[in-house]
Amino acid sequence: MTPARGDHEARRTEVSEAVWRVLSTRGFEALTLRAVAAEMGATTGLLTHYFPSKKALVAHALELLDRRSLERPRRLAPADGGPPPPEGLARLRAALLDVLPLDGPGRAGNRIWVGSWDVALADPELAEAHAARYARARRLLTECAADAQRLGELPAGRPAEELAAGAQAFVLGLVVQAMFAPAEFPAERQTALLDTYLAGLAAG
Amino acid sequence: MTPARGDHEARRTEVSEAVWRVLSTRGFEALTLRAVAAEMGATTGLLTHYFPSKKALVAHALELLDRRSLERPRRLAPADGGPPPPEGLARLRAALLDVLPLDGPGRAGNRIWVGSWDVALADPELAEAHAARYARARRLLTECAADAQRLGELPAGRPAEELAAGAQAFVLGLVVQAMFAPAEFPAERQTALLDTYLAGLAAG
Repeated sequence: MTPARGDHEARRTEVSEAVWRVLSTRGFEALTLRAVAAEMGATTGLLTHYFPSKKALVAHALELLDRRSLERPRRLAPADGGPPPPEGLARLRAALLDVLPLDGPGRAGNRIWVGSWDVALADPELAEAHAARYARARRLLTECAADAQRLGELPAGRPAEELAAGAQAFVLGLVVQAMFAPAEFPAERQTALLDTYLAGLAAG
Repeated sequence: MTPARGDHEARRTEVSEAVWRVLSTRGFEALTLRAVAAEMGATTGLLTHYFPSKKALVAHALELLDRRSLERPRRLAPADGGPPPPEGLARLRAALLDVLPLDGPGRAGNRIWVGSWDVALADPELAEAHAARYARARRLLTECAADAQRLGELPAGRPAEELAAGAQAFVLGLVVQAMFAPAEFPAERQTALLDTYLAGLAAG
């Protein structure tokens, strides 16, 4: 039985919430049509009406992650209409801090991002979508680094693309460390490590 | 029917090979007793004799990964009895290069490491084992960094632990980038990025 349109939207939201709960507690490995149905108290049959396969479910989960990452409070573009986004080196710093698991929502999102790498590496289409996401993030970082060079905050010697690739590597690896050892990598230490890294770039 | 001891060992090796093939092509998400049995041309029943559950299979896979990581040619401790391992900054560089996906075996191992993060984050025991692995690696890097400071190759200002944590973040993130965008991050670029990072540390 096909549900009515209003029901359909409400149900999709309900499915999304259930997908998020499964992923943030048990990861992609546990993301099955059956697990999501159980989480919703629904039947697997109802769920297959929305997502015909596990791959469709995973693709939906990654879209959801993209959307939630954009929605959570970000230093780079404050959602509350706060102070205007910084520029140059301060903007680069803000963009990098936005990636780190510095608080609860940051940890929840990163737990799912890191978890998504296994399924993404197993599927050429998902891998390409992830590669495009990271390339897009590097373009933003490159822009920030080039601005910082123009402002004289970073030395002009190195290509901005290389500064961006290095900075992205640094924060991605810091995410992994902090996810596995949260007590050893509290927000203050993550921020201090990043600031030392940026000070090193500024010193040339 | 319980197999004889010699058979048992041979069969375990066969199972390990099948686990490795499943993981390196399809990841942890696809690691099921059924998939490994199919890969071996055996029955699921036979496999459960060796691994009673998926968790046992995953734990075995991670041990296998540890062993293979130690076995593959490493700059830090050449298996062929080549030149003695370097010391100080050169040793730090060798240890960091050993982590990167610079060649086929490096890519295969890293594909599995990165893939293991999803299941590891979902299970406290596996997460703790992973945290211990990274902490052990950081201790080695700390030792190298302290030696480099003693030799005057790195400035004495920063604690060696912080140099090690930063360097580990840098290579882990570089692994992720290179796994998703191998064409953009060939071995030469990975090495150049690492060398620039180390030069920055040396300059203080």
